[in-house]
Amino acid sequence: MEKIYQASTAEGAIDFINMEDLETAAKESIPKGGYGYISSGAGDIFTYQENERAFNHKLIIPHVLRDVELPDTTTKFGDEQLTAPIIMAPVAAHGLANIAAEKASAKGVARFGTIYTASSYASCTLEEIRAAGGMEAPQWFQFYMSKDDGINRDILEMAKRNGAKAIVLTADATVGGNRETDRRNGFTFPLAMPIVQAYQSGIGQTMDAVYGSSKQKLSPKDVEFIASHSELPVYVKGVQSEEDVERSLASGASGIWVSNHGGRQLDGGPAAFDSLQYVAEAVAGRAPIVFDSGVRRGQHVFKALASGADLVAIGRPVIYGLALGGGTGVQQVFEFFKKELEMVMQLAGTQTITDIKQTRLRENGYL
Amino acid sequence: MEKIYQASTAEGAIDFINMEDLETAAKESIPKGGYGYISSGAGDIFTYQENERAFNHKLIIPHVLRDVELPDTTTKFGDEQLTAPIIMAPVAAHGLANIAAEKASAKGVARFGTIYTASSYASCTLEEIRAAGGMEAPQWFQFYMSKDDGINRDILEMAKRNGAKAIVLTADATVGGNRETDRRNGFTFPLAMPIVQAYQSGIGQTMDAVYGSSKQKLSPKDVEFIASHSELPVYVKGVQSEEDVERSLASGASGIWVSNHGGRQLDGGPAAFDSLQYVAEAVAGRAPIVFDSGVRRGQHVFKALASGADLVAIGRPVIYGLALGGGTGVQQVFEFFKKELEMVMQLAGTQTITDIKQTRLRENGYL
Amino acid sequence: MEKIYQASTAEGAIDFINMEDLETAAKESIPKGGYGYISSGAGDIFTYQENERAFNHKLIIPHVLRDVELPDTTTKFGDEQLTAPIIMAPVAAHGLANIAAEKASAKGVARFGTIYTASSYASCTLEEIRAAGGMEAPQWFQFYMSKDDGINRDILEMAKRNGAKAIVLTADATVGGNRETDRRNGFTFPLAMPIVQAYQSGIGQTMDAVYGSSKQKLSPKDVEFIASHSELPVYVKGVQSEEDVERSLASGASGIWVSNHGGRQLDGGPAAFDSLQYVAEAVAGRAPIVFDSGVRRGQHVFKALASGADLVAIGRPVIYGLALGGGTGVQQVFEFFKKELEMVMQLAGTQTITDIKQTRLRENGYL
Amino acid sequence: MEKIYQASTAEGAIDFINMEDLETAAKESIPKGGYGYISSGAGDIFTYQENERAFNHKLIIPHVLRDVELPDTTTKFGDEQLTAPIIMAPVAAHGLANIAAEKASAKGVARFGTIYTASSYASCTLEEIRAAGGMEAPQWFQFYMSKDDGINRDILEMAKRNGAKAIVLTADATVGGNRETDRRNGFTFPLAMPIVQAYQSGIGQTMDAVYGSSKQKLSPKDVEFIASHSELPVYVKGVQSEEDVERSLASGASGIWVSNHGGRQLDGGPAAFDSLQYVAEAVAGRAPIVFDSGVRRGQHVFKALASGADLVAIGRPVIYGLALGGGTGVQQVFEFFKKELEMVMQLAGTQTITDIKQTRLRENGYL
Repeated sequence: MEKIYQASTAEGAIDFINMEDLETAAKESIPKGGYGYISSGAGDIFTYQENERAFNHKLIIPHVLRDVELPDTTTKFGDEQLTAPIIMAPVAAHGLANIAAEKASAKGVARFGTIYTASSYASCTLEEIRAAGGMEAPQWFQFYMSKDDGINRDILEMAKRNGAKAIVLTADATVGGNRETDRRNGFTFPLAMPIVQAYQSGIGQTMDAVYGSSKQKLSPKDVEFIASHSELPVYVKGVQSEEDVERSLASGASGIWVSNHGGRQLDGGPAAFDSLQYVAEAVAGRAPIVFDSGVRRGQHVFKALASGADLVAIGRPVIYGLALGGGTGVQQVFEFFKKELEMVMQLAGTQTITDIKQTRLRENGYL
Repeated sequence: MEKIYQASTAEGAIDFINMEDLETAAKESIPKGGYGYISSGAGDIFTYQENERAFNHKLIIPHVLRDVELPDTTTKFGDEQLTAPIIMAPVAAHGLANIAAEKASAKGVARFGTIYTASSYASCTLEEIRAAGGMEAPQWFQFYMSKDDGINRDILEMAKRNGAKAIVLTADATVGGNRETDRRNGFTFPLAMPIVQAYQSGIGQTMDAVYGSSKQKLSPKDVEFIASHSELPVYVKGVQSEEDVERSLASGASGIWVSNHGGRQLDGGPAAFDSLQYVAEAVAGRAPIVFDSGVRRGQHVFKALASGADLVAIGRPVIYGLALGGGTGVQQVFEFFKKELEMVMQLAGTQTITDIKQTRLRENGYL
Repeated sequence: MEKIYQASTAEGAIDFINMEDLETAAKESIPKGGYGYISSGAGDIFTYQENERAFNHKLIIPHVLRDVELPDTTTKFGDEQLTAPIIMAPVAAHGLANIAAEKASAKGVARFGTIYTASSYASCTLEEIRAAGGMEAPQWFQFYMSKDDGINRDILEMAKRNGAKAIVLTADATVGGNRETDRRNGFTFPLAMPIVQAYQSGIGQTMDAVYGSSKQKLSPKDVEFIASHSELPVYVKGVQSEEDVERSLASGASGIWVSNHGGRQLDGGPAAFDSLQYVAEAVAGRAPIVFDSGVRRGQHVFKALASGADLVAIGRPVIYGLALGGGTGVQQVFEFFKKELEMVMQLAGTQTITDIKQTRLRENGYL
Repeated sequence: MEKIYQASTAEGAIDFINMEDLETAAKESIPKGGYGYISSGAGDIFTYQENERAFNHKLIIPHVLRDVELPDTTTKFGDEQLTAPIIMAPVAAHGLANIAAEKASAKGVARFGTIYTASSYASCTLEEIRAAGGMEAPQWFQFYMSKDDGINRDILEMAKRNGAKAIVLTADATVGGNRETDRRNGFTFPLAMPIVQAYQSGIGQTMDAVYGSSKQKLSPKDVEFIASHSELPVYVKGVQSEEDVERSLASGASGIWVSNHGGRQLDGGPAAFDSLQYVAEAVAGRAPIVFDSGVRRGQHVFKALASGADLVAIGRPVIYGLALGGGTGVQQVFEFFKKELEMVMQLAGTQTITDIKQTRLRENGYL
């Protein structure tokens, strides 16, 4: 690792054509250890790679003569009016990508007009994040629980105080995956984690130590605990099976978040998009579904929505935009997805997000 | 982009063994921006690549002892006697490939003896195209509708006046796909589009601007409009599903054109050849089917015919032939497909096009 | 093409570990045009490549505790006692690989102790081939029919006079496939074809001319003609479907030869090994089945026998052995297959060829 | 081959992140002939490669909210308490990797706390191996039978005298596979094989000679012979099918060992992991199942256990650890698998090995 970690100070419009361009440029901008941490996956990166390839398992049929013009991506989600059903995924330590960190990303997301999910491991305080997004911007709080319930109550209190509209319980990262790039780079966190400082300093810690300091023994009781102490909707993140849908809903979860943590946790598991259909079938409309992992194109957003997702969360690409263009770059990334989604909607004959959700994809029988 | 766009002036016999040779040579002949526009596909070019790979999803069984000799590719289509069931696909702006543009390609196609489909975005006028092909040559007109119905009536009138025997409504390109090569090349159209000049100048426009100036909000009413004002058969181009077959036929379409626009529009959709079987089953003989997208070999023509197509349209390869050999090159490309088709017919034990259509391909169970 | 075609004069033991080694070495030994003709496939070589890959579609289960030792490859086929159920496939113009041509290959095959199939397009006379193999060696004659039945009668008479025990009617090559390597090399036959000189000189002709001079219009009547004029068993070569099995047997064929001509004829068709199961099911024991196309390993021979073949014919590898070691090289190639087959038999728990034929392969469900 | 074979003398902790690292480093450490012998597979290495790829045929669903913390890999197997259900596979001639040979590997395995399977072709005596592991360490003896039953009795007596708790009859290697790397390297064994010296000297012999000197004609009677003369449980190694399960159990086998010998024997056969499900279904709990071939990750161990294996044996990776770090390296390799398994257990929501065995993997429908 670098002795002194020098993240980008960029702020302003960036030039890119697709997310691959962005990743290539970000690799030059973000210090090696930080880039490795952000970009890499677990083990043999089988699952990481499957996450993106899996979108080819289902095909969008172009539809014609559907009377579509200027498709509308706006979405009403609960009380929120969103520019598109595309939200910010919780990602730790935005300070690795830009010294403005979550202050910049929250601002960019708010300007675009969608939900910002703040990570427990953010490089800024929740006060800073809220201030950056603005008091009206919808923010959710992603929770890595402490082993100490007193601390947990304090953190939930802090989230509530800062306007969090939902708590996202990350349940698929009770330990870190075998992220070998971090080990090769000798990566340790160069930054503090102010939100969870009561149980974790952040600075100088390996990923294993970071995950080790949070609570391993998550159970349905933790969902109940969060729901009762926060009085907010709880999303269980990391659900990929029917059993976990039932377990989550039975414990009081208000929403299901399908994710495999961007292929960073359990290698040898399914692509998140492949799991989405199992989850959607099990949920059967009982709760909203958020989806992330592998989304790099507007067509991926379309396919996730058509497969049962209500919201699609974007992680790594936003961080690359943050590294290269600060809050403006973040906003541009969301605009990219919106623009591609509009094109796909037009070509697929769907005027609205509701139309997408009623679309049936074609199974790709040739794989 | 080049300041001055210098297309080829070639006219005369060219030397090639297959369409890959032709593409390789054309890349040298056509200015970079034009070649990028012609050759590339949308997004991650998944669908573009699937278009050709998909022909391996079905296999031709060689058949023996079938009493076949000098197979006959001639085809009666409506009132037209064609040298083979292989026609010219609508392709915009032949002037990008050769200064003789559609004047040369129409001549080459007429000499071969098949249907020429003139694009709305042609570099020549319909008068020029008709004159080049000769008054007897069968020509169809591909229509990008204006947002203005007065203009549409004028254009249909012009097509009719110039002997168009059918109108092909391109319904899968109400906006352009995410053709990133054009953006990387900074490509803008260097040429005028005389046929649609009433709503679009052509010169200096990006692809997005070109598509944007045409009508997005296509609906069944447009099919009815075209049919009633032209009194010609209407083919709906871009159909890939049962629903769109029904929608098209119900609105008065006389024929169905299966295409995904050569993989240039919606990436993440099916290969056109894979869609053909769905469409053919839905049409069930009620209307003729034209097929394009990915055809590079005689065996591809055979497989499309055996899967329900009545005519197979060729796009990019013809434009490469045009760049390298003008009208003569165009004719050679058609002769190439005819010759390969004859070989396949002999080896598959099929004497006539009718025999091909009664052939059953074998599903490739090993993919 | 080389002005003077200088084929190898090699005779003697060669050093190799597998057939890939042999092909690599043969490429250096055989003049470019000849090597291209021998080694290449049709079109995009999809079918050529599938021929070998297809053997992975079925898997041999190793079996244990089966009381097997020194497995026995010998086979009784009709009246012939063969060293192994591995025979020489008909291959044109051995003189391209070695000046000793069929005189050497026939000697090598006879020493190994199996059936030699002489091609109509051999570089030697049938008298020479028979003399080289020895009067007792089992020889079959592969027939490319002339358009002239008088010539056909003469050739059959010649075959019979020279001890042919069966006639193999190649029915899948009434025209040549699109073998583009030959066209790139400007390959024309540098050698005479003495057996068919009554209808074809051979020297200086392109492959298209060679195939063109033979009979295209093959039908069941030709099988009857050959059977009645030769009074020998007729094998129809090139059968890959149930329909052609019935057509062949109904016309008096005594045996079925599954082949796609080594992937040299119709590209876009199935792997021969994949077709074998269809044919074997259709034949249902009514006639012997010979199989060729893609065999490079003892495990391939085993899989073909376990899938219904009675004899497995080897083509290109034998020619490579001929180029590198004359008759001795040819014999070594057969010994290689025998040795690998013995190893596979031991590990698969099969003592005899009959045991192999009763073995069930496992479908590879993961492709 | 090297005139004098100089194996590593390493002993001490080594640095590695995964088994691929280890293989890369071991290639530098082990003399070429020895490395080729250890690392390579048979024929076209299709089966060798499938062994590892096959683990992607089934997917581990990450499970959340399962109340898991510090998962427990310990396993009771018969009377033995094991640190994890991961044991040492029988591998010949550890002396090729390290001059301390089995003395070092047995010590490392004992320190880790699991079963050591000594090969008949070990470079050390059973007395040395037992002494190295310690009198309490569980050791099994892998048996390559002699053709002479007197010798067989003597060897079994020796194994018993040295505390063997089970006899593993390797039944899938009555001859060697076509290991072409050994032939290319001109590899002959540079070391003695003291355990089987009564029928085989070892030194200077090719692999074919080694296998040739052992008994080919294995049958159910041999299982009975071993069971009756050793009075120990007999595991039949190399079982991949239902038939062989029945054959083995009927002949008195106490356990089934699923293996394809690391892809070193019959190329063109199934991946061992794919066979495991057939075997587990056939065994149906009647006997313990050991699994090896292709295991390189903790997730592979998990998948094997969830597919019916009771113990998972590791071969090549242990030998690489031996080459690079002697007994310490061997122990580290086992610790690697344990650590990865713990991580997978945590993420899959499984607290114990029993939990793993009750886990259902998801079929990978996209291959």
